[in-house]
Amino acid sequence: MANLNETHDPALTSWVESANQPGTEFPIQNLPFAVFRRRGQPGGFRPGVGIGEQILDLRELARNKPFDGLAAVALAACDQPGGQLNEFMAAGQETWSALRLALSRALRTGSPLRQALAGALVPQADAEFTVPARIGDYTDFYASIHHATTVGKQFRPDNPLMPNYKWVPIGYHGRASSIGVSGQRFVRPMGQVLPKGASAPEFSASRRLDYETEMGVWMGQGNALGTRIGLDDADTRIFGLCLLNDWSARDIQAWEYQPLGPFLAKNFATTISPWIVTMEALEPFRVAWERPEGDPQPLPYLDSPRNREGGAYDIRLQTLLTTEKSRAGKSAPAVLSETSFRHSYWNVAQLVAHHSVNGCNLQAGDLLGTGTQSGPTPEEAGSLLELTSGGQKPLTLPWGEERTFLQDGDEVILRAWCEKPGYPRIGFGSAAGTVLPAAAD
Amino acid sequence: MANLNETHDPALTSWVESANQPGTEFPIQNLPFAVFRRRGQPGGFRPGVGIGEQILDLRELARNKPFDGLAAVALAACDQPGGQLNEFMAAGQETWSALRLALSRALRTGSPLRQALAGALVPQADAEFTVPARIGDYTDFYASIHHATTVGKQFRPDNPLMPNYKWVPIGYHGRASSIGVSGQRFVRPMGQVLPKGASAPEFSASRRLDYETEMGVWMGQGNALGTRIGLDDADTRIFGLCLLNDWSARDIQAWEYQPLGPFLAKNFATTISPWIVTMEALEPFRVAWERPEGDPQPLPYLDSPRNREGGAYDIRLQTLLTTEKSRAGKSAPAVLSETSFRHSYWNVAQLVAHHSVNGCNLQAGDLLGTGTQSGPTPEEAGSLLELTSGGQKPLTLPWGEERTFLQDGDEVILRAWCEKPGYPRIGFGSAAGTVLPAAAD
Repeated sequence: MANLNETHDPALTSWVESANQPGTEFPIQNLPFAVFRRRGQPGGFRPGVGIGEQILDLRELARNKPFDGLAAVALAACDQPGGQLNEFMAAGQETWSALRLALSRALRTGSPLRQALAGALVPQADAEFTVPARIGDYTDFYASIHHATTVGKQFRPDNPLMPNYKWVPIGYHGRASSIGVSGQRFVRPMGQVLPKGASAPEFSASRRLDYETEMGVWMGQGNALGTRIGLDDADTRIFGLCLLNDWSARDIQAWEYQPLGPFLAKNFATTISPWIVTMEALEPFRVAWERPEGDPQPLPYLDSPRNREGGAYDIRLQTLLTTEKSRAGKSAPAVLSETSFRHSYWNVAQLVAHHSVNGCNLQAGDLLGTGTQSGPTPEEAGSLLELTSGGQKPLTLPWGEERTFLQDGDEVILRAWCEKPGYPRIGFGSAAGTVLPAAAD
Repeated sequence: MANLNETHDPALTSWVESANQPGTEFPIQNLPFAVFRRRGQPGGFRPGVGIGEQILDLRELARNKPFDGLAAVALAACDQPGGQLNEFMAAGQETWSALRLALSRALRTGSPLRQALAGALVPQADAEFTVPARIGDYTDFYASIHHATTVGKQFRPDNPLMPNYKWVPIGYHGRASSIGVSGQRFVRPMGQVLPKGASAPEFSASRRLDYETEMGVWMGQGNALGTRIGLDDADTRIFGLCLLNDWSARDIQAWEYQPLGPFLAKNFATTISPWIVTMEALEPFRVAWERPEGDPQPLPYLDSPRNREGGAYDIRLQTLLTTEKSRAGKSAPAVLSETSFRHSYWNVAQLVAHHSVNGCNLQAGDLLGTGTQSGPTPEEAGSLLELTSGGQKPLTLPWGEERTFLQDGDEVILRAWCEKPGYPRIGFGSAAGTVLPAAAD
């Protein structure tokens, strides 16, 4: 199933020494994209590719014109005025692949291009990042049945999983303007909440602030309005994946979400990882996508042999927490949960095929969230709402504090990586965000 | 309450003769904005102001540098590379107002600038239009209680109006990419629908395709993430209003909308009028905003003396239909309904204050739909779902055809205007869109 080429060879090493260290997230087999600048220098955001502890500055590299053919076209597409990747994303799979191959060869141990590239390296420690594309539209899905079931029990005890769930990859539109990269700090939202037993709401800072551990899907080549992307085309239209934290105010959500869905409970902040791991880098980690026994087969537009054979991706997801106290005491972050994206009830190709089946036009740089990724066991849940049973069973953190929902100063860190025997780890970096106190009115 | 100035003087006339014709929608007191180009000429979209049957080309005008001071700054802000109005929208109320005053004086009968402006006029009949701003995010509200109640009865007979409705201006995020201007033609969406009595959905073209008659609210100056726009500031942060048709596939919606709201039922197309009527032009049509007796007063962030005194706008809304048959027979469009935006349960300042109360950042060029505007009587409803009682009572059109939901070839035309004795009519132009047959798979 997997479509592998020389860039996936596990034996490859790089002349960038840190890319060869055991446990690095950015070996030469990864080559994730980000948009960055040297810290403290205004302006000048530009695209880069992660390699070990360095970033290869693609704007700087483009000046040297090191590549020929399609790779040269690809590099030029990366070098746009604002630094964002939309034009490169729109260029399509062949173009992405040509640049990956050229970069893989140029960064390999013994490459004659080493001199040409060495001047374009920037240490990641000296960089700051921004959202890597102009996000035209942001959509969030609800693709984990374990999450949907557990949360459904809390919001609708008599009706946890809607009758449509196993047929429709449920999704809704989200807010693009409040999406920020790792390091985002946002104020606790104010809003209407309905105190227990009350008939009138009060205006208050959210008391049930939560995170949601998701993957983000970056669209590459889109579709014209009125056309659709078929399931087996969808893989080649997706540029790559990132981490995504869909911060959620559960008390605001419970009061506002009927009948048109979440709104102010979600749109105050969304934190993504700056790094985009390409679908080509993830190719070795495709796994079969299976329906649980007895569940209906999807409608034809969501079902194909190819998709069943390898539509899922085995990506480990980890959620960590630090607090003011843990940071003061220099405690290691608490691991709140771990799971794999392979458990998702709907896979990324299905999300794209569904989104466009009515003719809705997707565009390069659109971002799709997968919805909270919770695994089959309660410990694998991707939100505090699930881990604490709606705030009824506090978690005790290793340094002694308890948490039901997030406190001011809390920092949630998402991490993800792919690993398997005989293959270097392919990492996503992290998406960290911190809760600030609510704004005084 | 109303904040009137010399541009509102009903006695003003223009040297553009068509602006003085009785019944014109674009008298000199209006001066709405659009982005246009001469038909058939590629590229070159630019901002313009409607006057009578002409458009004053602001890019052409900017070359002549006819204005001084803030009006000159404003005109320069209009003249951006892509032609869109985002920079001008972000410039704020004072800047908008300075340009309005300068244009009003320059277009007045007897203006010494007549020669300078005459060369920048383009007949509307020769123009084609585009979406007038880069829409960062599109939000749709649900602000008519008459619509919410009637529709709620059909979707949830036991629970038509949710307990939150009278407290929360219910809204959800929509799709920006599929928004088009008047003249939009879109294919009937395909999707999952649940046949009556069935337990499994089928894949089909929508059989219950509907329109929704709404106003659109164009944001001007936005707010930084983590801050909010107060109710009494909201008016001056809104650039203007347009018409908006939120096309809806009721059968797809009924099956998909639980629990996260409408998605594919709405995002295949949204049609707006190209013209934006500024809030300053609407100032004479402010009216008191009143809660029905016995309804709760809004929470403080949604309530102020100023808002109660004049937060609503008396804008007449009209929905018309033509069909293939009516056009072949040259019948006049059928008037499906008329109402006024003054009946909206939530007004535009409340929508903006609510949207940002949690710190969500609104940006210049964001578009907010008000939700379907249905008046208090059944004939004033803004959708076929309401007018035909969910498809059970077909409408008979003047030329003999019947309609429950829209057929292929049907064209829905929204119109709006303000009128009152002794004041010229302030019109919005129209938002027309046509249904094409579903795409063959």
